[in-house]
Amino acid sequence: MTDTLPTGATIGILGGGQLGRMLSVAASRLGFKTHIYEPGANPPAADVAHAVTTAPYEDEAALRAFAETVDVITYEFENIPTSALDILESLRPIRPNRRALAVSQDRLTEKAFLTDLGLKTAAFAAVDDAVDLAEAIAEIGTPAILKTRRFGYDGKGQSRLKSPEDAGKALADMAGAPSILEGFVNFTHEVSVIGTRSIDGQVACFDPGENVHRDGILHTTTVPANLTASQKMDAVLLTAKILNALKYVGTMGVELFVTPQGLIVNEIAPRVHNSGHWTQNGCAIDQFEQHIRAVAGWPLGDGKRHSDVVMENLIGADMDRVPDIAKEPNAALHLYGKAETKPGRKMGHVNRITP
Amino acid sequence: MTDTLPTGATIGILGGGQLGRMLSVAASRLGFKTHIYEPGANPPAADVAHAVTTAPYEDEAALRAFAETVDVITYEFENIPTSALDILESLRPIRPNRRALAVSQDRLTEKAFLTDLGLKTAAFAAVDDAVDLAEAIAEIGTPAILKTRRFGYDGKGQSRLKSPEDAGKALADMAGAPSILEGFVNFTHEVSVIGTRSIDGQVACFDPGENVHRDGILHTTTVPANLTASQKMDAVLLTAKILNALKYVGTMGVELFVTPQGLIVNEIAPRVHNSGHWTQNGCAIDQFEQHIRAVAGWPLGDGKRHSDVVMENLIGADMDRVPDIAKEPNAALHLYGKAETKPGRKMGHVNRITP
Repeated sequence: MTDTLPTGATIGILGGGQLGRMLSVAASRLGFKTHIYEPGANPPAADVAHAVTTAPYEDEAALRAFAETVDVITYEFENIPTSALDILESLRPIRPNRRALAVSQDRLTEKAFLTDLGLKTAAFAAVDDAVDLAEAIAEIGTPAILKTRRFGYDGKGQSRLKSPEDAGKALADMAGAPSILEGFVNFTHEVSVIGTRSIDGQVACFDPGENVHRDGILHTTTVPANLTASQKMDAVLLTAKILNALKYVGTMGVELFVTPQGLIVNEIAPRVHNSGHWTQNGCAIDQFEQHIRAVAGWPLGDGKRHSDVVMENLIGADMDRVPDIAKEPNAALHLYGKAETKPGRKMGHVNRITP
Repeated sequence: MTDTLPTGATIGILGGGQLGRMLSVAASRLGFKTHIYEPGANPPAADVAHAVTTAPYEDEAALRAFAETVDVITYEFENIPTSALDILESLRPIRPNRRALAVSQDRLTEKAFLTDLGLKTAAFAAVDDAVDLAEAIAEIGTPAILKTRRFGYDGKGQSRLKSPEDAGKALADMAGAPSILEGFVNFTHEVSVIGTRSIDGQVACFDPGENVHRDGILHTTTVPANLTASQKMDAVLLTAKILNALKYVGTMGVELFVTPQGLIVNEIAPRVHNSGHWTQNGCAIDQFEQHIRAVAGWPLGDGKRHSDVVMENLIGADMDRVPDIAKEPNAALHLYGKAETKPGRKMGHVNRITP
């Protein structure tokens, strides 16, 4: 193991939400310390971190001080300001690399990257104004979805067009942000693959999971997914293709639409992913530890699945059901310790396993 | 769930070693914060705790300040000074209760408690001086083991007597500490049961594990253990009997000798136990989370075993093997982040699973 962080080293994590929290726990299993950088006070990850910096991403002094205490930097979300990355990268390695962030921060760049790789995506076209949108609708047709190119997640920054008449409202919804029109994909279901690539190019993928959304937010992930053996193979191979093309180091989530014409890539997330939370109770090594192993330069672990799992997100008032879930057989709760319950807020999840 | 800590509450943990560290991680899964109290600087648990107090157990002000920030107090080791417990107990509930500590802090009290319950132990006699020892040897015979009544662990504070001629040396080894002579037990192997009791008296036991020691320190625990169905049932029932007799709240380790005449209780530990580390990768809910659930007044989780596991402790120079173990299939590493590797020091463990 060359280029390998020794146990006891410190991993810097940008972002202190639940993903940073579970990354921090995984890091602790390998003897690493974590240092969380997060603008908001008392983030979930702070409860399980060795150190926390509370500062905005515009605070150059704080960024420098943070970088100097850590051995490597990773992140739990993709929308990190470029200026912050420039400062951090001058001081410590950032894994996964900037390329992965650049691709996934912009839906248009992402789609272009994927089609260049020979992978299928929804039809798409850039939309900056009403003229672009009219041309895009003429080319792609409706129904379609207009999305901001950047900073969208959990269904935010999106507007559906049932017919060309919806163009005006959709454009207004974008509030002037550079956008992309995506054609409607006639899919039967959505699956995702959580894959990890190590520094020396080793790739490991977990079994694909099948995702069900509610109100634009992931509701459940079920493994095994409803896929033929060849679809499953396709899903894993295309994930490996993406990881290798980006010379990616870490864990990535790849969302796929299953259609009669094959698998269509919906989007990629250059980080651990909500649809990979099932691995915590389905495998000896979970997605968080695979990510930590990769960014620390370690060999990947064994992500073989030992149980069937249904992961259910606990959102907002779902927290009222925790006392009952706590009594269920074969149910493993994962709560994020967020102080305030709000509608639409991810508060935790439960993995129900069938060995 | 009455008497139940809400997610977001803070659990105080006395002791910041690897057990406190893994308790802290388990607490985070249920949304709890932890506050570690530990005299030594930079303890392993500090890496994953919300707060840490570094102060001796004689510092009354520090104990009071600690207690006032937490909702309940638990511990990772049994040798907590009585004066500290008196202060803490006046401010917050301590779980497991004082009775469990009193019993397990003193080998003589423990043996008397177990025999009063109708359970079998090694023959034993109190030894305070040479006269006591001569009488004890006459009664119990040799081979036998002289042990200090208090503060022994991992084979420390023990002296073997192969014959009565070893009496002088054994007594000298005790350095004047109140002691107990224990008769030799002719056992085939050692197993342990990790059991948990909730506030409302629910009891759950994990499958018994079979323990192999090296140089007086646990080397491996293997599940399933080599036990007949009726031995397994006996092991679980006697563990429940101990938990109920103590009105215990939390996880306990019960070490048992397997003999042709039945199971003999070696010792009990009123805390999570090294021989229960396999549960981290063998069950949906591990011994640490069961303990946290119990002390937080939650219902116990489902400790059903989904995989066979061999847990191996990584002691001292075993850390040199970590790079190879990291590459093994089906191997889950758990490293404690201790700064310095020393001979005999528990640095981590690995759970090798067979689903």
